[in-house]
Amino acid sequence: MTTTGKQIFTTLASDGTLTVEVGEVEFSDPVGSQVLVRMEAAPINPSDLALLFGPADLATASYTPGIVVAKMPEPFAKAAVGRHGQRLPVGNEGAGTVIAAGEAPAAQALVGQRVSCVPGNAFSQYAIADAMMCLPLGDISARDGASAFVNPMTSLGFVENAKMEGQKAIVHSAAASNLGQMLLRICEEDGIALVNIVRKAEQADLLRDLGAKHVVNSSDPDFMAQLRAAIAETDAFFGFDPIGGGRMVDSIFTAMEQVAGSRMTDYSRYGSNQPKKMYIYGRLDRGETILSPAYGFGWTLSGWLLTSFLQQAGMETMVRMRQRVLDGLTTTFASHYKREVNFEQMLEKDAVLDYAAMKTGEKYLVTPWA
Amino acid sequence: MTTTGKQIFTTLASDGTLTVEVGEVEFSDPVGSQVLVRMEAAPINPSDLALLFGPADLATASYTPGIVVAKMPEPFAKAAVGRHGQRLPVGNEGAGTVIAAGEAPAAQALVGQRVSCVPGNAFSQYAIADAMMCLPLGDISARDGASAFVNPMTSLGFVENAKMEGQKAIVHSAAASNLGQMLLRICEEDGIALVNIVRKAEQADLLRDLGAKHVVNSSDPDFMAQLRAAIAETDAFFGFDPIGGGRMVDSIFTAMEQVAGSRMTDYSRYGSNQPKKMYIYGRLDRGETILSPAYGFGWTLSGWLLTSFLQQAGMETMVRMRQRVLDGLTTTFASHYKREVNFEQMLEKDAVLDYAAMKTGEKYLVTPWA
Repeated sequence: MTTTGKQIFTTLASDGTLTVEVGEVEFSDPVGSQVLVRMEAAPINPSDLALLFGPADLATASYTPGIVVAKMPEPFAKAAVGRHGQRLPVGNEGAGTVIAAGEAPAAQALVGQRVSCVPGNAFSQYAIADAMMCLPLGDISARDGASAFVNPMTSLGFVENAKMEGQKAIVHSAAASNLGQMLLRICEEDGIALVNIVRKAEQADLLRDLGAKHVVNSSDPDFMAQLRAAIAETDAFFGFDPIGGGRMVDSIFTAMEQVAGSRMTDYSRYGSNQPKKMYIYGRLDRGETILSPAYGFGWTLSGWLLTSFLQQAGMETMVRMRQRVLDGLTTTFASHYKREVNFEQMLEKDAVLDYAAMKTGEKYLVTPWA
Repeated sequence: MTTTGKQIFTTLASDGTLTVEVGEVEFSDPVGSQVLVRMEAAPINPSDLALLFGPADLATASYTPGIVVAKMPEPFAKAAVGRHGQRLPVGNEGAGTVIAAGEAPAAQALVGQRVSCVPGNAFSQYAIADAMMCLPLGDISARDGASAFVNPMTSLGFVENAKMEGQKAIVHSAAASNLGQMLLRICEEDGIALVNIVRKAEQADLLRDLGAKHVVNSSDPDFMAQLRAAIAETDAFFGFDPIGGGRMVDSIFTAMEQVAGSRMTDYSRYGSNQPKKMYIYGRLDRGETILSPAYGFGWTLSGWLLTSFLQQAGMETMVRMRQRVLDGLTTTFASHYKREVNFEQMLEKDAVLDYAAMKTGEKYLVTPWA
């Protein structure tokens, strides 16, 4: 027996033409520990956008009902040679109701329950998920449970990672985001100092209203002085940046080095020996990352990926993290959405340009049955 | 009793004015394990230039006999606040003859001997050095022994570091340098594959004549294809870059990811899970480092500093490395110089502009008594 439903697909042709469309799919019956989930809500996260549209030119794309055709610029089209011609499903996470299950008891136990899951094709009316990775939501709505994985586990992962590296303070940019607000709450719970960098006064106010102690506005003329003061106060020489492109990481390293330098009694030609470490975990700005030579050689910049971190952290840590997320899904780990769209609305020009801009606090939720 | 001699000093005023001059200094008698070395030869290494002139504007500087006055641009002048007003000696390493020693037997044993040393003020007629860090040169000339520390220990450090991280291959840029040639010989001795990146056909020929198997010319139109082929053949996802500024590291990461991507059977939105690591160990190009978003999140870029590496590696490794350098000082670890200059010649405009350009194979040697 099979179940048929609609699903979003993205296809990159070898000539750089990107097609995103609503298609029909047949889902086989779940086997073993699999469950079949009728998906009710899925967030459009930046990581989904990277696959859905990547750096394709959305302003000049052609929009017809249920289908978007855009051009992917070089060298991105070439770098993505691995996906050329493949019709790929999209959507890391979402929530829905289990309507069928494989024979494994863990799967059978979920039948009829609402769960959050990480199927990889969450922009779909149905999805096959592994029971082990499903989180039973109980009374929590699909809307509230749709984002139970990416942002909660990422923000919690930052704090776990900081602790693993012996850090007691974190610098975070684009800090007013859903993820940034979660991080603020986790850091408060765990006694980790947090330097929040935002780019608008409203965002600074928002975070201060939520209890943030160190908020720095990159649009202020004295941004660097604010940042130095916050780093000096917190000893934050470690941080996470979701912007990626531009000069944010450079500004942070520069401020860290200035703080460390001001504490040195002897001058060293190589800069301070204060290690400085930043992770880039997103690409809100898909432009180039610019690093100036203003902070010696005592720095490390690395990409950060949730799945790689979880592998490194191990199963025990991951189970502990998931439990903490479940316990705080409507409090510490709550998400907010600007708009709900069905598949057709999701592929309309105004919607695409709006959510692809990845503005702080303007996340979309996909509701495939609306 | 004191010994008086000439020495090079560099001073950065708080207004950004940089003064480099020949001064007179008195040296006290050595005590304990110290020795007093009559310095005969010292190389001008890129790391010395970083302190000597930094990013000061040398084209518009004022040159009078024995003194150079230049302007240091912001933000470098500000970042170097720790050296404002300090009259700093320069010169990491050099060679000379021990003319006096402290009472320690290790120091006394060196009296009358030619040694290489790491005094930090090697651009001086005399220097106080620690006997433990002196390498007795025997029949080797001061010229041949002048560069026994920085380049040999750095190139050897790369191979030690690669082994520590489980790597069997290294990518190296500006590979025709003195250091690059040493690295080539060490890698050959130790069975480590080496991808040499140069920017001129003559440099490629030079390295091939020295036995290099993988040489890639960044000036060739098919540079990226050459680089991909060399990485694919050697499995080099790890490397060292002395250029720092510009797009070299970006090109290397991009080529590494393209090789890794071409080996994947399934497309991943996050790029390959092949870890890619590059170290920047110099700033031949003091411009900004540009990183594009073409290689996912599985990469790490870090500054590399010899002293930090040696600390991390520990005393036993360092002693083993020093012995290997001494054994190969006229073979594996031999250095070559374009020109010898005394202190006055060292501060003449044509000389300054020439050695500050840090061109491959054009290193200067300072001979303070000539």
